[in-house]
Amino acid sequence: MKENHMLKEYTIKSVPFFHIYGRTDESRDDLPLFWNGSGLEVNVSGSELWIDLDVDYDIHEPWISVELNGSFMSRQMLLPGRQKLCLFRGMDPGAVKNVHFNRELQAMSEDDGCHLVIKGLLSDGEFRPVSEKKYRLEFIGDSITSGEGTYGTVTDTDWLPMYMSSSVNYAVMVSDMLNADYRILSQGGWGVYTGWDNDRRHAIPGYYDKICGLAWGETNKTLGAMKPYDFGSWKPDAVIINLGTNDATAFEQPPFTDPDTGVTWKQRKNADGSYNKDDIRAFKDAVISFVKKIRSFNPESLIIWAYGMAGYALSLPIASAISEYSDRSGDENVTCIQLPDTSEGEYGSHMHPGPLSHKKAAKVLYDHLSRYMP
Amino acid sequence: MKENHMLKEYTIKSVPFFHIYGRTDESRDDLPLFWNGSGLEVNVSGSELWIDLDVDYDIHEPWISVELNGSFMSRQMLLPGRQKLCLFRGMDPGAVKNVHFNRELQAMSEDDGCHLVIKGLLSDGEFRPVSEKKYRLEFIGDSITSGEGTYGTVTDTDWLPMYMSSSVNYAVMVSDMLNADYRILSQGGWGVYTGWDNDRRHAIPGYYDKICGLAWGETNKTLGAMKPYDFGSWKPDAVIINLGTNDATAFEQPPFTDPDTGVTWKQRKNADGSYNKDDIRAFKDAVISFVKKIRSFNPESLIIWAYGMAGYALSLPIASAISEYSDRSGDENVTCIQLPDTSEGEYGSHMHPGPLSHKKAAKVLYDHLSRYMP
Amino acid sequence: MKENHMLKEYTIKSVPFFHIYGRTDESRDDLPLFWNGSGLEVNVSGSELWIDLDVDYDIHEPWISVELNGSFMSRQMLLPGRQKLCLFRGMDPGAVKNVHFNRELQAMSEDDGCHLVIKGLLSDGEFRPVSEKKYRLEFIGDSITSGEGTYGTVTDTDWLPMYMSSSVNYAVMVSDMLNADYRILSQGGWGVYTGWDNDRRHAIPGYYDKICGLAWGETNKTLGAMKPYDFGSWKPDAVIINLGTNDATAFEQPPFTDPDTGVTWKQRKNADGSYNKDDIRAFKDAVISFVKKIRSFNPESLIIWAYGMAGYALSLPIASAISEYSDRSGDENVTCIQLPDTSEGEYGSHMHPGPLSHKKAAKVLYDHLSRYMP
Amino acid sequence: MKENHMLKEYTIKSVPFFHIYGRTDESRDDLPLFWNGSGLEVNVSGSELWIDLDVDYDIHEPWISVELNGSFMSRQMLLPGRQKLCLFRGMDPGAVKNVHFNRELQAMSEDDGCHLVIKGLLSDGEFRPVSEKKYRLEFIGDSITSGEGTYGTVTDTDWLPMYMSSSVNYAVMVSDMLNADYRILSQGGWGVYTGWDNDRRHAIPGYYDKICGLAWGETNKTLGAMKPYDFGSWKPDAVIINLGTNDATAFEQPPFTDPDTGVTWKQRKNADGSYNKDDIRAFKDAVISFVKKIRSFNPESLIIWAYGMAGYALSLPIASAISEYSDRSGDENVTCIQLPDTSEGEYGSHMHPGPLSHKKAAKVLYDHLSRYMP
Repeated sequence: MKENHMLKEYTIKSVPFFHIYGRTDESRDDLPLFWNGSGLEVNVSGSELWIDLDVDYDIHEPWISVELNGSFMSRQMLLPGRQKLCLFRGMDPGAVKNVHFNRELQAMSEDDGCHLVIKGLLSDGEFRPVSEKKYRLEFIGDSITSGEGTYGTVTDTDWLPMYMSSSVNYAVMVSDMLNADYRILSQGGWGVYTGWDNDRRHAIPGYYDKICGLAWGETNKTLGAMKPYDFGSWKPDAVIINLGTNDATAFEQPPFTDPDTGVTWKQRKNADGSYNKDDIRAFKDAVISFVKKIRSFNPESLIIWAYGMAGYALSLPIASAISEYSDRSGDENVTCIQLPDTSEGEYGSHMHPGPLSHKKAAKVLYDHLSRYMP
Repeated sequence: MKENHMLKEYTIKSVPFFHIYGRTDESRDDLPLFWNGSGLEVNVSGSELWIDLDVDYDIHEPWISVELNGSFMSRQMLLPGRQKLCLFRGMDPGAVKNVHFNRELQAMSEDDGCHLVIKGLLSDGEFRPVSEKKYRLEFIGDSITSGEGTYGTVTDTDWLPMYMSSSVNYAVMVSDMLNADYRILSQGGWGVYTGWDNDRRHAIPGYYDKICGLAWGETNKTLGAMKPYDFGSWKPDAVIINLGTNDATAFEQPPFTDPDTGVTWKQRKNADGSYNKDDIRAFKDAVISFVKKIRSFNPESLIIWAYGMAGYALSLPIASAISEYSDRSGDENVTCIQLPDTSEGEYGSHMHPGPLSHKKAAKVLYDHLSRYMP
Repeated sequence: MKENHMLKEYTIKSVPFFHIYGRTDESRDDLPLFWNGSGLEVNVSGSELWIDLDVDYDIHEPWISVELNGSFMSRQMLLPGRQKLCLFRGMDPGAVKNVHFNRELQAMSEDDGCHLVIKGLLSDGEFRPVSEKKYRLEFIGDSITSGEGTYGTVTDTDWLPMYMSSSVNYAVMVSDMLNADYRILSQGGWGVYTGWDNDRRHAIPGYYDKICGLAWGETNKTLGAMKPYDFGSWKPDAVIINLGTNDATAFEQPPFTDPDTGVTWKQRKNADGSYNKDDIRAFKDAVISFVKKIRSFNPESLIIWAYGMAGYALSLPIASAISEYSDRSGDENVTCIQLPDTSEGEYGSHMHPGPLSHKKAAKVLYDHLSRYMP
Repeated sequence: MKENHMLKEYTIKSVPFFHIYGRTDESRDDLPLFWNGSGLEVNVSGSELWIDLDVDYDIHEPWISVELNGSFMSRQMLLPGRQKLCLFRGMDPGAVKNVHFNRELQAMSEDDGCHLVIKGLLSDGEFRPVSEKKYRLEFIGDSITSGEGTYGTVTDTDWLPMYMSSSVNYAVMVSDMLNADYRILSQGGWGVYTGWDNDRRHAIPGYYDKICGLAWGETNKTLGAMKPYDFGSWKPDAVIINLGTNDATAFEQPPFTDPDTGVTWKQRKNADGSYNKDDIRAFKDAVISFVKKIRSFNPESLIIWAYGMAGYALSLPIASAISEYSDRSGDENVTCIQLPDTSEGEYGSHMHPGPLSHKKAAKVLYDHLSRYMP
């Protein structure tokens, strides 16, 4: 390779123009990418662009993808260590290229060592302003919103980073269709009231007000994950919650005993197979409570509970909880939408909605949102 | 034309094998087709098949369509009078042909003279048994379920029989996909609590227990429309209710004064544009009451409220009403499903969901029903 | 039915504005529809429009279809006799409606009695000018261009009028996509050199210069079918020939003996299964000769031989014949295009290309023609 | 990262089972990947698989892609140097994974330093036999077959490695659909008689009998590129030639002067815009000569000239040349097929056929080939 001696190094702060995707600590001079769909977008001239990364993990390696001028160009596993990736080379130096570098892997509550930090960029060109998107969308979800199953074959059954993505993900699709900036908070296996295995610690609402409250460990803390999130800094036009799938699974799973307290949790079913009324009530209360919390931080945002890509088991309780919340609060800026269930032939890996299911859901959500965001 | 002197005439009762679609008075020797999707299916050999019809109307002419061996073959307006239509001719006499003759036009509450009666068949072949469908579905709806807009151009704005159909209709599509027999009860402009114009007389529930309680006039009465419907004669696996679209419109329309009583009706909106709580409560009560009524006649059927093809305005009230009904009654065999909203490019004539929207809805409904009916 | 006493009767000549599709004798005061895709288009206000028809046949009944405002509305078999069909009724009298009445059935060389004549129209509205199409296309073909197989089920194997159409037909689709007027000359089983059964009398070129030279019998003659066609009256931008499919079949069929002369014809195959060179030469000469003939009548038109919807057996001979013609004549305004072969799942009835195959072919042809007709 | 100490290193030769894609020197203990679509397929158990690569280039960097269990998983640029890539990790050790490692970039006649060599694999699992494909297909082409334009945005106009691929490529798609092994020989800008710029040195036929005769330079020579290709080692069921696009462009381009000989070449057009007959003759002779050459090395293979994805300019000369060859030689095992032209909305980057165009072409080619390879 003929080396390019014209490359100039930039820390994040010294890059004159850029756009950050995802909740992060923007006060730093590097850029930690906590959530899937977190990333960096730049417009830059020059023949080459490199990105300087710091990567590590104990078990689950991060994956990233790159879009060039709006088109998917690459997707790869990251190995640990400080490293430079070339995002493009050999291009017409005069033309301005749009590059979007993107974390594919969800925040990893099960791997304290897992982190991905952009330390800087290298280019022989000049940075130009990045045009602002028309809308802002916040997505809150579980493995579906983590894009689990959007890569891999239907027969693949491992639980693996490489099967998760934001490059093939309804949340990103909807955002692109609406020309919206987006921030994703999602965690596979988690719910609004309980995790899939009746572990009630795995409920998203408790972590909503941190930058990335479920990325634990010293490194993540140092990177700012546990800091309170500044809701005033980025006001979403809509908050879309896609939770409930794991809450439904919990009814089918054995009890879970909290290792710290010894307390046992279980969402119960009646003898006839129906859901226990008290447990449904607890679930509905969790829905209502979470909507209240979201509303408290986002007074102007449309709130949409979007549910159904993996079955409609809790559609009625969700809708009636939202209805109850709306009736009592007088808050009319909240609604429910049923996303189309994944049908045969639309599954991806690990029994999750595949690319076709995400496209279908994105279309339904887009059709609905575009009534509010024309 | 060379006449076929081998044709033999059959009254309905003398046809040895046939299948009737739609609610009708099956005790008669002819076959009145009241609802859209009503019709007759036969398997027959021979080179020719004719159908003998008695047709009349004051204003709105019936349309019919014919499927041969499961393929759409013809669709036409009927002129008034006793008449014979040729359903096929010139075919291989030895082969058995499957013919499905089908009423396209909804029952016409606004035209007492409108009727379509099959008086008999003529054939030079032999009738063979018609294979029974695997499931039975009852659909209850408004203009969407009457297929309004499934024919005609998006700029067509007349309210006309020719724009309605069962040949391009989500209810029939779903039934075909599931191999299900179907019965449709639908009326354009009607709702579960009120018609689109706040006319509360135009609510389907009051007519559910008759064969075709909204086909008025002497002729229809004579044909059996007002007879009580024998729910025991045909037990649906599922009852699908697609009502609420006109109930939502009523909130946007001026008050309606009942010409008989002078009472004025109006679904009201608050100053901030939201729906009046009392009126929503009345709507929800109507939903609950109708589900109770349906359940009383169909103790074993899955009941699904399927709503959304023309907007989600009343999704939450419907879902919370169903949830309320289910909670109170302990009836777990009832659910809600949101059908995908019609998006740009999917509209048919008269601002109604077009063929693409019906296909989309059918797919979602099929995916859902096939979990119950594998 | 309440009769409409405002209807006014028009002979064709007294209709102030209309557009005729298809070759016919335009000097008459009625309008014989000889070919499939022949028809009449009007723009008319008023609440009702009727068409007055004279129909007869010995064996094969004509089918027609109607488009209203560009949308398919009806399709039906015609019974013999003078008769009035209602094309629309009950419409907003002030609005101008576009109506296209269309013959579905090909010209019937096997039924001398078969004819369909529009005698006039009846309306309570006023006729308005019909906008002229941007281009003119002439299509010459066999059963594929007669739309055989575009209606009916894949298992249907009769040879029947009802399976033929112009309403689902690549020729009409292409024309609609290009905003082109069209004229179709086609006959099932015929070829450019020989019919499918080696009957060389069934070759289209010999009939190209008549209005409808293969509609025999006294009635058709009286209606003008045998009159020379006035090529100057309608100059096509392109002539598309879709012939060769039956010429290929002839190689697989037994010899045919001309009943009049006793001469026997056969397209021969060699022992190794390849085509006999002399017979291919004769086929190529027929291609060249037909192109010359078409050119002589259409000096300015693009000539495209479009072949392949039912296999590519004669692709090479056709292309090399066209190339030979072009080389020798210096005529560069002629080309070949291979239409996509019908693949599994795309067949219609009677083993012919079905609707999906026609759509696919129309897209390829459109993509090609739109380079010439932007 | 927790290191995996169970990884065992394998040279290519020590891997017990594998399948090689693409022409290469199989006598070596490493595996040079010369052509796009060259690669390695293994079945392996274990939790991790790594690939050991030796990469370099002067200007144009190689790109690779990886399929896991038949699904696209990653695609990335390679930087120069000896390096290990992780193909999967963290998987269920007991399950056998299918991995296909694939060169995206075409052989690079313009970069002598460009090479990509697989030195070996590392795994903690066991290798299992790779099932043999049912058919074998050889594809010969230009930039289209190099997949140029299958990545990147329609407005991207650089000539760049990252826009080329075999992961989105009609040749690979057809092969996958037919369950066929494939070998690709292609070079952007080259033709059968002349390159796009009238440089006649850039004609594929002269390089057909080497392993990779157009990968120049010492390194490639050492890797075996210039060795004669052993046609007996891999007998294709079909050889598909997709050349002619650049031969057509040459007619539109200025003359080219061979820098070595000073001879000037030009495919000429006549004053009326048509092609010069002598130059077309030379092109046709080149077609005939190449088919003869292919036949000499592949006596049993079906030979298909498949042309048209970027316009039909030379369809007729190609078809008539093939016809001429077939007539003279008596070789009936050769044919022509027109691939569908790329239409608006189907272009990829650098004005080349995009993914949709490749899919369309693959379907047409598949439909055709599956008649021979059921």
